[in-house]
Amino acid sequence: MPQKPSIPKGTRDFSPIEVAKRNYIINTIKKNFELYGFQSIETPSFENSETLLGKYGEEGDRLIFKILNSGDFISKVDDVTYSSKKSSSLAPKITDKALRYDLTVPFARYVVMHQNEIDFPFKRYQIQPVWRADRPQKGRFREFYQCDADVVGSNSLLQEAELVQLYDLVFSELGLKGTTIKINNRKVLYGIAEVIGAKNLLVDFTVALDKLDKIGQDGVKQEMLDKGISETAILKASPLFGLSGPNEDQLEVLKNLLRESEIGMQGVDELEEIINSVNELGLQTSKLQLDVTLARGLNYYTGAIFEVSAPEGVSMGSIGGGGRYDDLTGIFGLKDISGVGISFGLDRIYLVLEELDLFPEEVSVSLDVLCLNFGEKEGKAALKLITQLRSKGLRADLYPSAAKVQKQFKYADKRKVPYVILLGEKELSEGQFVVKNMTSGEQKAYELQNPLAFVQDLNS
Amino acid sequence: MPQKPSIPKGTRDFSPIEVAKRNYIINTIKKNFELYGFQSIETPSFENSETLLGKYGEEGDRLIFKILNSGDFISKVDDVTYSSKKSSSLAPKITDKALRYDLTVPFARYVVMHQNEIDFPFKRYQIQPVWRADRPQKGRFREFYQCDADVVGSNSLLQEAELVQLYDLVFSELGLKGTTIKINNRKVLYGIAEVIGAKNLLVDFTVALDKLDKIGQDGVKQEMLDKGISETAILKASPLFGLSGPNEDQLEVLKNLLRESEIGMQGVDELEEIINSVNELGLQTSKLQLDVTLARGLNYYTGAIFEVSAPEGVSMGSIGGGGRYDDLTGIFGLKDISGVGISFGLDRIYLVLEELDLFPEEVSVSLDVLCLNFGEKEGKAALKLITQLRSKGLRADLYPSAAKVQKQFKYADKRKVPYVILLGEKELSEGQFVVKNMTSGEQKAYELQNPLAFVQDLNS
Repeated sequence: MPQKPSIPKGTRDFSPIEVAKRNYIINTIKKNFELYGFQSIETPSFENSETLLGKYGEEGDRLIFKILNSGDFISKVDDVTYSSKKSSSLAPKITDKALRYDLTVPFARYVVMHQNEIDFPFKRYQIQPVWRADRPQKGRFREFYQCDADVVGSNSLLQEAELVQLYDLVFSELGLKGTTIKINNRKVLYGIAEVIGAKNLLVDFTVALDKLDKIGQDGVKQEMLDKGISETAILKASPLFGLSGPNEDQLEVLKNLLRESEIGMQGVDELEEIINSVNELGLQTSKLQLDVTLARGLNYYTGAIFEVSAPEGVSMGSIGGGGRYDDLTGIFGLKDISGVGISFGLDRIYLVLEELDLFPEEVSVSLDVLCLNFGEKEGKAALKLITQLRSKGLRADLYPSAAKVQKQFKYADKRKVPYVILLGEKELSEGQFVVKNMTSGEQKAYELQNPLAFVQDLNS
Repeated sequence: MPQKPSIPKGTRDFSPIEVAKRNYIINTIKKNFELYGFQSIETPSFENSETLLGKYGEEGDRLIFKILNSGDFISKVDDVTYSSKKSSSLAPKITDKALRYDLTVPFARYVVMHQNEIDFPFKRYQIQPVWRADRPQKGRFREFYQCDADVVGSNSLLQEAELVQLYDLVFSELGLKGTTIKINNRKVLYGIAEVIGAKNLLVDFTVALDKLDKIGQDGVKQEMLDKGISETAILKASPLFGLSGPNEDQLEVLKNLLRESEIGMQGVDELEEIINSVNELGLQTSKLQLDVTLARGLNYYTGAIFEVSAPEGVSMGSIGGGGRYDDLTGIFGLKDISGVGISFGLDRIYLVLEELDLFPEEVSVSLDVLCLNFGEKEGKAALKLITQLRSKGLRADLYPSAAKVQKQFKYADKRKVPYVILLGEKELSEGQFVVKNMTSGEQKAYELQNPLAFVQDLNS
């Protein structure tokens, strides 16, 4: 019995049309990364376990895919460990490699390993798959691409301004108008916790604040109380709960609230400088919006943080995010390298473009010309013609057998080929070929001697 | 103590310049695949173990990277298996996924799973990494890319002719002139074994014949004797050992030798038809050479087989190979789907282009314009200018801090930036910017109001 094939849960096959659509997004991102001076690197799909483990918290460690050692892996397990029969003790003895969980830790590892070859500031981008043993659900996969751009070795806040521009440029070019680029600063969050006297509850405070959208003011206040933040502290923080409106107004409120916190004020200054730079440079279709409830990735961000939401009316989580981190490479022994980066959420952007019908039609055309096959002699003549068309950059093909014309046309339809060439016995004897425009139905004859006339018609 | 980072043996980091060079090759291959009507698909990095195991022989099974099950993997192992403490018994109980070993088996799995959505004939290409737990050595890695193009669902020998054209086109475009595309046919090999009376020793016979290049006629004869092929049989086969010269002459020898073997003659006919088609269509810089000693991948090829060798003088194994297979999807339950495909050896092509210094210079340029940074005010003006240049398709960047001019120039040198923009206090006050051509050393001033004048100069 042959196997009935399937693929592991949480993974996907991508059909030609899906690959074409994904590449349309990836190429748009890539092109703009490169216009902004970012260079591409690639790192191995698996890293030594010790490079990854312990970098993403306990939950992260659990979600990392581990690769079984090759050969007689079990012979290297000592008897004590073996007899314990505990997965957590056995795993480190039988695996020493793991699939990468994100692109950030491998990038930090790369920077440290190659620090002597790198010309800092280093603007790198990386578009590669990552793997997580997460429970699969709608829009969440066990293998998915990350698209990251980071600058390391520069403290300039102009980097943040440029990254905002870059978001705007990519989404505008994808036709995704009206995205909101939310910005906040970790120092502001720290400052708030400081001035309200909840510095030691910073994480609980920001996690609660982050939920304002979902659970409302009362919910946030209740959660803060539950976590042990005092009523007085919450009262002090309350101007934040309703904070909205123009960035300038919000900055004023923050300046007032944070005047006692040096770090907090530094965060406000940074926000102001970034916002001013972006205002001067201008954005095409996105809006930069200060959002003091944005908490995002508390693990390593230390300055500005970003999150992009899809245009209003599209229900989708964030389609991008990022921020500044002061000491990412420290874990691998290279101190004081500041970095700032952004990431694009490929799968979600795909879903949004699909929902809003924003993929250009030509993305789904994979063949410009199909030549019908009317037999051996005609087929060979057609191949010669096709060779010439291909040399002019046309994606052209011959139907591989002299099947019924109807069947061949059906194939052309399914592949959405815009032009079909007819080169039958009659045409061949007259030294001609006929081109049928599949949209209009029009037909036009050309001389076999001069196929470029057709190419010129196409380009005109 | 921070870790001193490293990467697993047999894997590689790719620096920006390496990625650029690899992409230059990949994009050339891709472009031509698409001109020939191939469509890209992608399959998951890992497959269910049963999809892969048993498909590559015992040795292959050993080289497949297995992924440890998540969670409490050991609790699912029964006591009998556990107490055996045998790696081979334990592995299937604690892993159910494995990294893909090649692109062919996943493709066969894809075709079977999606047979109802696919419009046959299906021309697909796939450029993705594969993983093998091989002992790493020069030019052999544990993670490497395969670049495959296959046509399934067509028996036409024009496919073979087109694939030869495609090889020629790609290598010609890469500047790699003088490659030899060796062709043979599995039916011819079968026919030879048949007429010399060694049908049951077909594999031994072809394996020995394949070594003619390396061990010479006497060596081959000795190996055949050792394997139990009779002196008479070897004598009958001896016209093959010195076979060389024009394809037409070789075909005559084969026709004579194989006239008693129906299958053998079928192979000769196929070869003749393919060679004739290719002759009619013409090749740019490659040579199609019949090589009856070519054995290649005895596992699933059933018709034509190909192998490409680098131009004479470059010592490198084959840089591409492929062939026709009659029943690849049979293992997954879909019978009678014939296919033919070719593969490009990315890593070896890279080494050859490097050795012959064939990478175009522009491949290593990742930034067209670097604007020096002379301080906050000048930097902001520069960013405005840069934004305009980027919108015209120039890869442009601002040095992120007002470092010493010498340091900034050094950075420009290292990144091989062809143009540097000077926009200091003086230039800003005069409403100008100065462009320095880094090759010639020439400088020219432009109006800040009209940066497009510079873009026009560049394009002219």
